[in-house]
Amino acid sequence: MPDENIYDKIIDIAKRRGFFWPSYEIYGGQAGFYDIGPYGTVLKRKIIELWRELFIKGNQDTVVEVETPIIGPSIVYEASGHVENFTDPIVRCNSCGRIFRADHLIEEKLNMDAEGIGINELNNIIKEKGLRCPVCNGELGEVKTFNLLFKTQIGPYEGNVGYIRPELAQGIFVAFKRIHESLRNKLPIGIAQVGKVGRNEISPRQGMIRLRDFTIMEMEYFFNPNKNECPNVEKYYNETLNILPYTYKENKKGFITVTVKEAIERNFVINPCMAYWMVIGKLLLLKIGVPETNMYFLEKGPKERAHYSSQTFDHMVKTSRWGWIEVAGYAYRGDYDLSRHKKYSNADIEVFEAYEEPVVMKVKKVLLDKAYAGKNFKSKAFEFMKKVEELDPDYVIREINEKGKINIDGIDVPKEALIIIEKEEKVAGRKFIPHVIEPSFGTDRLLYVLLEYAYREVDGRIVLSFPRYLSPVDAVVLPLIEDDEKLINKSKQLYSYLASEGFNVLYDDNGSIGKRYARADEIGIPVAFTIDYQTLEDNTVTMRDRDTWKQVRVSISETANVLKKFIYNSADLRELGKEVETKG
Amino acid sequence: MPDENIYDKIIDIAKRRGFFWPSYEIYGGQAGFYDIGPYGTVLKRKIIELWRELFIKGNQDTVVEVETPIIGPSIVYEASGHVENFTDPIVRCNSCGRIFRADHLIEEKLNMDAEGIGINELNNIIKEKGLRCPVCNGELGEVKTFNLLFKTQIGPYEGNVGYIRPELAQGIFVAFKRIHESLRNKLPIGIAQVGKVGRNEISPRQGMIRLRDFTIMEMEYFFNPNKNECPNVEKYYNETLNILPYTYKENKKGFITVTVKEAIERNFVINPCMAYWMVIGKLLLLKIGVPETNMYFLEKGPKERAHYSSQTFDHMVKTSRWGWIEVAGYAYRGDYDLSRHKKYSNADIEVFEAYEEPVVMKVKKVLLDKAYAGKNFKSKAFEFMKKVEELDPDYVIREINEKGKINIDGIDVPKEALIIIEKEEKVAGRKFIPHVIEPSFGTDRLLYVLLEYAYREVDGRIVLSFPRYLSPVDAVVLPLIEDDEKLINKSKQLYSYLASEGFNVLYDDNGSIGKRYARADEIGIPVAFTIDYQTLEDNTVTMRDRDTWKQVRVSISETANVLKKFIYNSADLRELGKEVETKG
Repeated sequence: MPDENIYDKIIDIAKRRGFFWPSYEIYGGQAGFYDIGPYGTVLKRKIIELWRELFIKGNQDTVVEVETPIIGPSIVYEASGHVENFTDPIVRCNSCGRIFRADHLIEEKLNMDAEGIGINELNNIIKEKGLRCPVCNGELGEVKTFNLLFKTQIGPYEGNVGYIRPELAQGIFVAFKRIHESLRNKLPIGIAQVGKVGRNEISPRQGMIRLRDFTIMEMEYFFNPNKNECPNVEKYYNETLNILPYTYKENKKGFITVTVKEAIERNFVINPCMAYWMVIGKLLLLKIGVPETNMYFLEKGPKERAHYSSQTFDHMVKTSRWGWIEVAGYAYRGDYDLSRHKKYSNADIEVFEAYEEPVVMKVKKVLLDKAYAGKNFKSKAFEFMKKVEELDPDYVIREINEKGKINIDGIDVPKEALIIIEKEEKVAGRKFIPHVIEPSFGTDRLLYVLLEYAYREVDGRIVLSFPRYLSPVDAVVLPLIEDDEKLINKSKQLYSYLASEGFNVLYDDNGSIGKRYARADEIGIPVAFTIDYQTLEDNTVTMRDRDTWKQVRVSISETANVLKKFIYNSADLRELGKEVETKG
Repeated sequence: MPDENIYDKIIDIAKRRGFFWPSYEIYGGQAGFYDIGPYGTVLKRKIIELWRELFIKGNQDTVVEVETPIIGPSIVYEASGHVENFTDPIVRCNSCGRIFRADHLIEEKLNMDAEGIGINELNNIIKEKGLRCPVCNGELGEVKTFNLLFKTQIGPYEGNVGYIRPELAQGIFVAFKRIHESLRNKLPIGIAQVGKVGRNEISPRQGMIRLRDFTIMEMEYFFNPNKNECPNVEKYYNETLNILPYTYKENKKGFITVTVKEAIERNFVINPCMAYWMVIGKLLLLKIGVPETNMYFLEKGPKERAHYSSQTFDHMVKTSRWGWIEVAGYAYRGDYDLSRHKKYSNADIEVFEAYEEPVVMKVKKVLLDKAYAGKNFKSKAFEFMKKVEELDPDYVIREINEKGKINIDGIDVPKEALIIIEKEEKVAGRKFIPHVIEPSFGTDRLLYVLLEYAYREVDGRIVLSFPRYLSPVDAVVLPLIEDDEKLINKSKQLYSYLASEGFNVLYDDNGSIGKRYARADEIGIPVAFTIDYQTLEDNTVTMRDRDTWKQVRVSISETANVLKKFIYNSADLRELGKEVETKG
């Protein structure tokens, strides 16, 4: 793994064998965009299916999946804070015009940590240290912020700004109330989504690790913050988590390994659901082929995480070229997003929680002064009085404190006309805004990680040892000799049979049998069935294991059966047939 | 079906039960965007899986799937022609500023067909007929074109324009060479993709039928135009196709029903592969629940189809509110796209076809005059002579005809220095640009169609009779009485068992059993298992069929088994257990 060179080899084989490659190659490429090729697309889909199994289907009593649009109107991303805060600092060379990410330039050239440093300080550092353009040595201009949202226009009216979503979350938050109601107001409820997002990075240079257009798998898990509980978490109490709390990091300690139960009891996690989704995330990575020793959960410090988040972990995985990279984040977003959308939309987003017994409480009410109403609204007086009574009293108090008036249907009503009373009422329950924990995975990074962890070299040849159930093709069917018609016909029959049984199969009769085995190993096909002259006599074929190169003989009629056992039940090859002596 | 009112009922239930609804509702909505809710997302995914089964997995010897980015650099859509031609005519009211689609306005107000009419003619019609703003009666301005591409900027440099893809095809065309090579130059090869696209419609008003942000399932099927053949088409020779050739349409005849064989032999289709993919498309629609009588293939006339297409069919399906709508298109795109990208990128996109025997042919060669080279390039003379020899002679001839010179590495070489000779050579094969047939489906339209064809009313209640294998939930588990703890516990056990067996299951103990059956029918759940007092005695449950409301009793241990048979093998309920008398 620590061998940095394997990165180049992976990129090479990914291109050559059709896993992935930089997009728009014929036009000289465009940084930050990758195509996923035929085999990569199967792998990526299988990663998404794994995530679905673990996060959604395995929790189908609480988790559902939705799909919301890629493009959203400006107001959504003003409310979410992205229009204001989703920025990176840039600096332009006054001489050659090139644009650089200011913090990265400082980090590279001055070898210091510049994460999260403000614009002014970045400007000062550049001036004090006399930093110049790394390309033409020209003078650098002022540091500015660049918004990473891809901006567009919705419809023909100029000024109707839209953005490509930078995360899936906001589509879920703005539809939360509707989804929650359609599921009859269940809580907790996880609302998951998988889809494309866009982030207009300044100058992405890390291949599949930092893309401008990529797929994430996300879930917003809504729960009642008054209940410090998590359904089913006990099932995983004894599972382990590698955690690096940020206080440990500051003390330069390494990660610790604790059980889920300990993580909750010792308050390493702010809420038991956080530990629950972290362990499900760990299981996902294990299934992709990353051993537990090569991953940990890095807690972000108060300055590194978003200001509204009370706890965030990055799920880190070790890679050859890029070191430890983040493949997922687990963020406690609190009620931030729903509260912001409530504020920006004035919609009733709150959730009702019934008390076990109704309680008598003092309740605020807003009334419209009768005389004022009569004088100003005449025949509509009664209607307006009713409208005022239906308003949220807290909203009215906020408005009159800020503006000295409220606005109803475009008509201003001054503070003086409003009466705020408190009275005792039997209250059946309370309304509140649920809190949210968000586990979010970068699918394309996982695809890269899958390839890296599958990569092996044996006798100078490349073998992609994917977990069998994740392999892009289940089996390859090969006639032993490339131009023997009898062997070819028999092979094509077996190919059609396995395809009709639902397997992904490849047929290959091009080149020597050794070359074809090597090609299958490079694609990561777990099984090769070879039709030879003995097949014509007794209807048996050889079955070769990609990982051991061992072979057994099995009956043609049994191939679908043994293939299923081998791939989905991790059967050992030797259980499935009679071992065959192979040379080399 | 002809009942127009069911549209409103479908939209209502789709919202209420979480199938789909207009996006950004809390912000007043944004036309052309829809959210797909929890049950709709399962349905949509199952539609995509069906398409994959039929188009990709069922043709896995020739068809692969890829994934390319949503955002593309400007050059890609300049080459494809979208920057120039992907437009609609708009007209703005000089008085209120509202913008209308000019051809639609004319169609609505003057009751005439305005499809494909040019800008000048639209302007003339508006002036001659004195058409005014339908909202404020103001004067209309000049008709202009509005480009339907969502435009954005890639990276921090202004002027680096990018677009959201309006179709999946261009991502496939620009990567064709790489994909083709990674699959060892196979032809024919179908390259499929499913994903989101954006089309910035002027004023979409047809709900799920016309979205600005939606999912398509597309395939580019590349083949050698010299070979008028299609693998496996014979398998479907006797399948029928409802076709309306454009000449029939002009003569006001209805569609005709022909077999695939007839369609090919009588030249209703330009190529046998066209008929092949049309019949696969028909099978997809049948599986979604549309009877063959309610669909046909409408051939577009020469003026209606894109200028580069020699044949295009729209796959039409009958709907209640919108009449016949297009759910798919089948376009013969010829070599247009690859040729354009070859022209714009100068990349070698052609495919090599070996002749059965090498043939002796006259071949053009371009040579650089030796004296000129020596004088002008000195020590680099030999290098330049080699470079010229490697150029495509047709390219050189075109260049010198157009410009009188060619450009090599930034250096102009005049016509006079170039010698074009013809000589005889043994040629092993030829290079050519493959032709393309493209079947392309609108997934969200299919989701709507699925709901409409599943919609039934029985005794004033709504039942969504989805094909069982497409239903959003496989079974609901119900305790007969809503607050009997013994029944509830037993029900939860059955729920967990079925979930662990891989089924999508719902548990419901809220309300009377009648209400809960009705709710399950509205979601379209094919089976309800009810736990009653007899269950506590003999471990049998009732199994209710959504479509007949009949019930049988089955053993709890058999539930997974009978559910599988009922859903995937279309078993009749009465084969699965002992029939139960039910009231009403």
